[in-house]
Amino acid sequence: MAKANENFNRLKESYLFIEISEKIGEFVKNNPGKPLIKMGIGDVTRPLAPVVVEAMKNAAEEMGVAETFRGYEDTGRGYLFLREAVAGYYSAMGVTIEPDEILISDGAKSDCGNLSDIFSDDNVVLVTDPVYPVYNDANLMGGRQVVFLNSNIENSFAATPDESLKADIIYICSPNNPTGAAYTTEQLKKWVDYALKNNAVIVYDAAYEAFIQDDELPRSIYQIDGAEKCAIEVCSLSKTAGFTGTRCGYTVVPELLELELKDGTKTTAQKLWRRRQSTKFNGVSYPVQRAAQAVFSEEGQKQVRDTIAYYQNNAKIITSTFDKLGITYTGGKNSPYVWFKCPGTMSDREFFDYMLKTIQVVGTPGSGFGKNGEGWFRLTSFNTAENTTEAMKRFEKMYEQF
Amino acid sequence: MAKANENFNRLKESYLFIEISEKIGEFVKNNPGKPLIKMGIGDVTRPLAPVVVEAMKNAAEEMGVAETFRGYEDTGRGYLFLREAVAGYYSAMGVTIEPDEILISDGAKSDCGNLSDIFSDDNVVLVTDPVYPVYNDANLMGGRQVVFLNSNIENSFAATPDESLKADIIYICSPNNPTGAAYTTEQLKKWVDYALKNNAVIVYDAAYEAFIQDDELPRSIYQIDGAEKCAIEVCSLSKTAGFTGTRCGYTVVPELLELELKDGTKTTAQKLWRRRQSTKFNGVSYPVQRAAQAVFSEEGQKQVRDTIAYYQNNAKIITSTFDKLGITYTGGKNSPYVWFKCPGTMSDREFFDYMLKTIQVVGTPGSGFGKNGEGWFRLTSFNTAENTTEAMKRFEKMYEQF
Repeated sequence: MAKANENFNRLKESYLFIEISEKIGEFVKNNPGKPLIKMGIGDVTRPLAPVVVEAMKNAAEEMGVAETFRGYEDTGRGYLFLREAVAGYYSAMGVTIEPDEILISDGAKSDCGNLSDIFSDDNVVLVTDPVYPVYNDANLMGGRQVVFLNSNIENSFAATPDESLKADIIYICSPNNPTGAAYTTEQLKKWVDYALKNNAVIVYDAAYEAFIQDDELPRSIYQIDGAEKCAIEVCSLSKTAGFTGTRCGYTVVPELLELELKDGTKTTAQKLWRRRQSTKFNGVSYPVQRAAQAVFSEEGQKQVRDTIAYYQNNAKIITSTFDKLGITYTGGKNSPYVWFKCPGTMSDREFFDYMLKTIQVVGTPGSGFGKNGEGWFRLTSFNTAENTTEAMKRFEKMYEQF
Repeated sequence: MAKANENFNRLKESYLFIEISEKIGEFVKNNPGKPLIKMGIGDVTRPLAPVVVEAMKNAAEEMGVAETFRGYEDTGRGYLFLREAVAGYYSAMGVTIEPDEILISDGAKSDCGNLSDIFSDDNVVLVTDPVYPVYNDANLMGGRQVVFLNSNIENSFAATPDESLKADIIYICSPNNPTGAAYTTEQLKKWVDYALKNNAVIVYDAAYEAFIQDDELPRSIYQIDGAEKCAIEVCSLSKTAGFTGTRCGYTVVPELLELELKDGTKTTAQKLWRRRQSTKFNGVSYPVQRAAQAVFSEEGQKQVRDTIAYYQNNAKIITSTFDKLGITYTGGKNSPYVWFKCPGTMSDREFFDYMLKTIQVVGTPGSGFGKNGEGWFRLTSFNTAENTTEAMKRFEKMYEQF
């Protein structure tokens, strides 16, 4: 008799963004004359850079000609041309990563979820709260115990290790989704030290690193000494280059990172991850890999930096408004997200409904990311400058009533 | 302390195709003057169809323009345009599948592996031997017990259920990889009846369905009554349309398919699979989905059928030679694979080395697919007609010595 994975019962019924999407759908249906400004889900809106489009088209053409057609990759770990480009990107931030330590994937979400396959089910997983739901859900699905560390206004939503809370695997995200908080070198060093001391592994989600503006903030966990022995870094081109619909990411599993076996021996995480991927994955579309390679070219970097600057300007429009209104917030400078306190005693879900009804601006209620998100709210800068300006104009007007 | 998933120790050290790839690499290095004819790994060689390339290029251009740019899909289950196209493809073979029962993915290998997430670890999994290693490896990785049913020359490498061998989840592949054997309606009905009787779930890998030439053979398990209550069908465009390097597949999880929970209640497999995918996957690249849609257009079908006919002709070249030499084989007519008995008492790994050394033709030793593959060998028709003809000429000459 085929038995279901009971661990699915540990998950909340509906994935946050789907839930919100349904609420919005209903509003749109009932209010056809009121166009929404969507600043909720963390999806980009600007088109792909011209060099990226060109690279994808050229690769598509290659696929149509026998002499240049490409089938399966030999390894499924990503073409060397792309792994070398990623290694070069790290090199430019002063970090040495070998192409062999990089695996290309269809995105950070897949890797954040699938990485759990290489770990035993009896590991204790630590996530900060509020948290991107994937870290939690993927591990609940695998039957693991998940413990939460409080991120809140007292620690500026950038929780650092608590020696009384032990864990074997730690998911951290910086700049953080949803709070926009970015770890300093000193804070990140605390995490690396904690992991090394406890033989824990950090899964470091760097999906938003390209939004960091302060030069002194780390953009990779490997900028911290010792991280190569305790950290896996997951990154993506979704936010860096607008690949949310194009799908390409990469994960760094350093050669030095070891995991324990029951008999006291060790194995490398890299060996297990390669085996996982060669069994349950078959590489990323060749034209997509060529498109990704173009992102890392000189012209590509220039073009994607322009787009990021555009979003950063939107974030500035939001934070300027919040500064003016005296609203407490984190993020916005080194992140596309602005995370702020809901007015008065209003709950975040009430505030979601209120904004939708009153000014037709869609955001994301903080409680969807965990209990410390209660009463907090996330807006994103992934919109046009015009819409962002208009949304903040309406927002300011709405605030007159509080 | 971060603990490894011990189940990786249950896997063989190296994935078969990687192992072979290394052997070939070594031969090429040491014999630069002897070009190989590769008839080993099941990878296509013909270019993508012109309409497919055109669709991908157009979609890439859309991604470069703000008005037509696409980010995340709402659901990650695949765009409706593609799910409708797949439903239409089923409809043409007389099978009713709703677009909501179809989930688009980056390929059959990913789905065959990842589907195991929705099942409890204490299910017993049945695979036929010889077998595509992914079914076995993915379930070993998850800690499940795997039992083997013999496919051999006595049952023409098309094993049917054995009531003494009980299982909860059954992986079957028809036309089969590696044996090329295709189930008849009567044989497939035996599997559906067995699954219904035992409340088992069949994961049916139909990746090679487009190679079926005999009209009376089923191309989908849903052509068998009752399969909608017990079978998940995984399919891919890799072999249908040369998407091995483009990456797109689809999985049908019928609404009626239920799984048991410990408390005696039931849940639907579809609900769990959607939840799995919305947590650990984020959809397929938009230009790839447009390319896939083009495969199902009238012109697309015509173009991909031409390519399949080309490979079918290669298979014919192989089987004609085998017929002439009196070699025992299965497959070739309804499959791109020809599976044959090695000469005399030669083991399949010896025969691999012998062919490589003597005629520089690369095939796949059967034992890589399981114990019943010992002494058997797989050749594929995924090559040029010229190479296939040349390989068979050399093969015939080589056979004079046996």
